[in-house]
Amino acid sequence: MKVQRYKHDLDISYALGATLTFELLLQRPDLVTRVFLSSATERSDAVERLLDVCRHCDVPVETNDKAFNILSPKGNCFVIGEFQKFSGSLSDASHIVLVNPSDAGNLGTILRTAAGFGVTDVAIVRPAVDAFDPKVVRASMGAIFHTEIEYFDAIEDYRARFPQRHLYAFMLKASTPLPQIPFEEPCSLVFGNEATGLPDCFADFCTPVIIRHSHAIDSLNLPMAAGIAMYEFTKDRWK
Amino acid sequence: MKVQRYKHDLDISYALGATLTFELLLQRPDLVTRVFLSSATERSDAVERLLDVCRHCDVPVETNDKAFNILSPKGNCFVIGEFQKFSGSLSDASHIVLVNPSDAGNLGTILRTAAGFGVTDVAIVRPAVDAFDPKVVRASMGAIFHTEIEYFDAIEDYRARFPQRHLYAFMLKASTPLPQIPFEEPCSLVFGNEATGLPDCFADFCTPVIIRHSHAIDSLNLPMAAGIAMYEFTKDRWK
Repeated sequence: MKVQRYKHDLDISYALGATLTFELLLQRPDLVTRVFLSSATERSDAVERLLDVCRHCDVPVETNDKAFNILSPKGNCFVIGEFQKFSGSLSDASHIVLVNPSDAGNLGTILRTAAGFGVTDVAIVRPAVDAFDPKVVRASMGAIFHTEIEYFDAIEDYRARFPQRHLYAFMLKASTPLPQIPFEEPCSLVFGNEATGLPDCFADFCTPVIIRHSHAIDSLNLPMAAGIAMYEFTKDRWK
Repeated sequence: MKVQRYKHDLDISYALGATLTFELLLQRPDLVTRVFLSSATERSDAVERLLDVCRHCDVPVETNDKAFNILSPKGNCFVIGEFQKFSGSLSDASHIVLVNPSDAGNLGTILRTAAGFGVTDVAIVRPAVDAFDPKVVRASMGAIFHTEIEYFDAIEDYRARFPQRHLYAFMLKASTPLPQIPFEEPCSLVFGNEATGLPDCFADFCTPVIIRHSHAIDSLNLPMAAGIAMYEFTKDRWK
């Protein structure tokens, strides 16, 4: 089976690196189709453990330098896990809703942080970056393997699916600062695009919330705003 | 004067991009040595405004495609500001202390977030990434131009310089969660390296603090931990 550079319309993606591949094998063993080793891979204890898990899960292992040239041309990666993409289904717990996120690293960081704060349901409104892009998978540090992600074509579709829940929209035009919000659970924390934020109309059907900051910056970056919001939202859980 | 690829031991660095160069010209006009335009630079209103500021500040402007090949080979940048590095001096306000930060993007994001929360004094303990690396400057979105940054060879040197102040060390081995810390100002929020965190011995001279999260992740990433800590630390200022 040929190794192909990742594309959005393929039904497979890749976990680049030994730690990430290990996480993939632990969380989604049924979806792993192959594990590639580079001929430069050192047979450390960690790699031997990974190979044990592959044997245990009947995952084929190939030494395949071509795969590394295609998938990780920078050469800083010695193990790659190939896996079938999976579809998620949002639960009735609280959600993160990302409207038009465009950056792979940012999406991965948000998934990692959300998993850290126990928020494992993420809705994404298109147009948006592909959550299975290996850059997202990598930046998520494997959190994507235990997150339910669903894409929607429009925020209206998301609202129709979850008509009862309270939505909190993080936007600079809001007047209520984050620490004053009495969050009702389950609810949804809604964030806009990196460059443009949320359209003003979100204030019509969401409670607008602002994370106040000085005038020295235009805005917090998206993962930072989402991370701070999730910290504040969930902090009573982790006391 | 020849354009050189950025190196740590040069006394100049570069602001890559029109917005960043504009911020440089506004904040540190005396330090700008040249502004480069690419022959592909469109003469938009924004660029004309930037050229006005250059004229006003007596900053020479060069159309110099070679500079872009050397400094921004990816070709997604049409204005570059060259500037002399500057040294900072920490004030008696509260500080961020970064011990051995290694990633340029992370340091830039921390500077941006710190500026957003009004923390404009940052101590960095070596070995550490170079704050004037153009990747740091860019990720800081210009916040570096209004931040006082000082490097120290060891945490002991920092402590000797600021012997009276209370230090809060963010570490996974701490037992007091962030929301329960009654911060005394001025103080210092101390963060470790991306991969290794802070050595245990920091608990001997700091109050250890933890940002609690689930077991789904090993840790928050460094800028996220620093951003959440700064949010909690400064949130009464922005009510």
